[in-house]
Amino acid sequence: MATVKIWTDAQAEADPRVKAVFDDIRATRKSDFVNNVWRALAGQPAMLEATWAQVKDVMAQPSALDPLVKEMLYMAVSIANGCEYCVHSHTASARAKGMSDEMYADLLAVVGLASQTNALVTALQVPVDPEFKA
Amino acid sequence: MATVKIWTDAQAEADPRVKAVFDDIRATRKSDFVNNVWRALAGQPAMLEATWAQVKDVMAQPSALDPLVKEMLYMAVSIANGCEYCVHSHTASARAKGMSDEMYADLLAVVGLASQTNALVTALQVPVDPEFKA
Amino acid sequence: MATVKIWTDAQAEADPRVKAVFDDIRATRKSDFVNNVWRALAGQPAMLEATWAQVKDVMAQPSALDPLVKEMLYMAVSIANGCEYCVHSHTASARAKGMSDEMYADLLAVVGLASQTNALVTALQVPVDPEFKA
Amino acid sequence: MATVKIWTDAQAEADPRVKAVFDDIRATRKSDFVNNVWRALAGQPAMLEATWAQVKDVMAQPSALDPLVKEMLYMAVSIANGCEYCVHSHTASARAKGMSDEMYADLLAVVGLASQTNALVTALQVPVDPEFKA
Amino acid sequence: MATVKIWTDAQAEADPRVKAVFDDIRATRKSDFVNNVWRALAGQPAMLEATWAQVKDVMAQPSALDPLVKEMLYMAVSIANGCEYCVHSHTASARAKGMSDEMYADLLAVVGLASQTNALVTALQVPVDPEFKA
Amino acid sequence: MATVKIWTDAQAEADPRVKAVFDDIRATRKSDFVNNVWRALAGQPAMLEATWAQVKDVMAQPSALDPLVKEMLYMAVSIANGCEYCVHSHTASARAKGMSDEMYADLLAVVGLASQTNALVTALQVPVDPEFKA
Repeated sequence: MATVKIWTDAQAEADPRVKAVFDDIRATRKSDFVNNVWRALAGQPAMLEATWAQVKDVMAQPSALDPLVKEMLYMAVSIANGCEYCVHSHTASARAKGMSDEMYADLLAVVGLASQTNALVTALQVPVDPEFKA
Repeated sequence: MATVKIWTDAQAEADPRVKAVFDDIRATRKSDFVNNVWRALAGQPAMLEATWAQVKDVMAQPSALDPLVKEMLYMAVSIANGCEYCVHSHTASARAKGMSDEMYADLLAVVGLASQTNALVTALQVPVDPEFKA
Repeated sequence: MATVKIWTDAQAEADPRVKAVFDDIRATRKSDFVNNVWRALAGQPAMLEATWAQVKDVMAQPSALDPLVKEMLYMAVSIANGCEYCVHSHTASARAKGMSDEMYADLLAVVGLASQTNALVTALQVPVDPEFKA
Repeated sequence: MATVKIWTDAQAEADPRVKAVFDDIRATRKSDFVNNVWRALAGQPAMLEATWAQVKDVMAQPSALDPLVKEMLYMAVSIANGCEYCVHSHTASARAKGMSDEMYADLLAVVGLASQTNALVTALQVPVDPEFKA
Repeated sequence: MATVKIWTDAQAEADPRVKAVFDDIRATRKSDFVNNVWRALAGQPAMLEATWAQVKDVMAQPSALDPLVKEMLYMAVSIANGCEYCVHSHTASARAKGMSDEMYADLLAVVGLASQTNALVTALQVPVDPEFKA
Repeated sequence: MATVKIWTDAQAEADPRVKAVFDDIRATRKSDFVNNVWRALAGQPAMLEATWAQVKDVMAQPSALDPLVKEMLYMAVSIANGCEYCVHSHTASARAKGMSDEMYADLLAVVGLASQTNALVTALQVPVDPEFKA
């Protein structure tokens, strides 16, 4: 259950600002599916517009990293932050963008290893090597 | 400052188990540099051996994801977990493996965006869409 | 599902220490509603008493910050810590204390922005400016 | 030490995009001081511009919450996320905007209490009360 | 709902690598119950084998700390990391290994106190005393 | 550097409330050493008194768990929360209370393993087994 209303398509259609964002999500993704995070943000149109603009700019524009790598980085952060919804939505997106079972296994291995060594390094308070200075 | 002794090369040379791991780190990486995390773990040889074996297996073996992508996933987790040493060491490793300034900018943009939307989704307690079910 | 029993009103009535705390919660809040966190703590009366005393002291006594601001700070920490129950209970409390939709939008914007810049600053390991020293 | 170069004023003056942001920071804040986070972001002008635009929009525009409350929410998130630089910079900003010692004590009490009860609730896995549904 | 398939016993029986691990879990624990984390990992046999080997080595071998203390440390980390499944499974394991209600109350008190003082220390950015140096 | 003043002994002597707490810390611990967290809290006497009372009650009173186990649980939470000062102070306290190198190795192994499996479980979104219900 959410702390806010999850907007239906009918409700979204009736609000021009929300409709415009939902239309752009559908056009950008070439899919009729609008997932719940956007329906939850719809009650605050300014935040809906700004968040979608930022997601579109970072994730949907061609850039130095390919879209699947960016999606897997998003997954890694979402796992580390323990965000249930985000883990589900970005795992699904990564699969849709071509993440194979072998790639997923690799991601899990790296995320698990990093979490383990992050904890060890924090426990030991390892001093940063001067060689790592920028 | 660390909570344990940071072993010098001379100290490592005098302990066969530590020497064996340090030798393998140098051979695997084709570099004489052994960074502080291994020097901090040297006081506990079983953990040193197990951790290095796991890092070597996950990060240095050919697998579905290329080495730079795995290093960038390691960075993303380390940033999300707030591990200062790990951020430094894996940023340096990623650069050594070919991360360009443009790729680094992309990683920062994704990590920043994911952190922001993770927080929003947690605040709103967005319910997981049935479409995301495995 | 909880890791401990959630006490009913009948069970609470039968235990004098639990009854005393539940009575004080109802009197302090001028409401008959006792939410689940107190029902979960009821099996450990010393912790129930100490936690309620601390919550009452910090949140229900007049102090330098007004009650709504304190409730919103509680929300911000609960979101950052990813505590589902806490996000729900403190969002509901903030609304009951007068948080408008506009204030909620502001809180979400700040929490999202802070999460994003926290991640960027951690990624870049920005050194603290000497001007910030106490 | 940072993972990137911290730009000096001379370096910023020589790059029109960076100069424009630094000028706007100084004008907006009515102060000559440009803190290190902006100097660290200067190597990536697009991110510098986008981050400053978002900070200016959320923190410096009149909105439902007063500027000091927004700054204290920023502090709370930064503390919960364990971001050293962010804790320093936003504590300094909150003081500059009028946070008294009594208000600071209140913030610390709420942040400490929330961290404690977040942990207890997570340990007990308290189920969300139906009364909290939106 | 999981992001991967949760393997049934029939499915596990049909895959020799998965069957071998499930058999060893049952033999090691002297119980027929195989909990969901192993059923979720079964799709990635290499990770299933490696994770079980590490859990068995760390948790089921005699070592300096008794098994219950190790289980309670596992609980403490899982609570701090906000991992719902892990809190449930390790609380159940600790109870099975003899954690009394009084010990559980103690653990909750320490975890709550540590979370609170961690937040205060981070807020105040307390410098490490030279006396704590290794 | 701290966000607040670190009180010297001379300053503490001059304030009766601070002096009383410092005296009790020294008497309780049978040591003249008062570490920085108390010197940082001294500017807010009510919080100093309440925090010390809670630490003394939880950590210094005989209870179901022995003092070393409680100190190691404190370490585990502090590591998971990434609190540098807390890791240092509680590692030093655990050593003073008898944590051997072998026990420390065990703690590190459990904390590392738990961090790794917490991440895997979060990534896979493993459903809680009905058998774990209270």
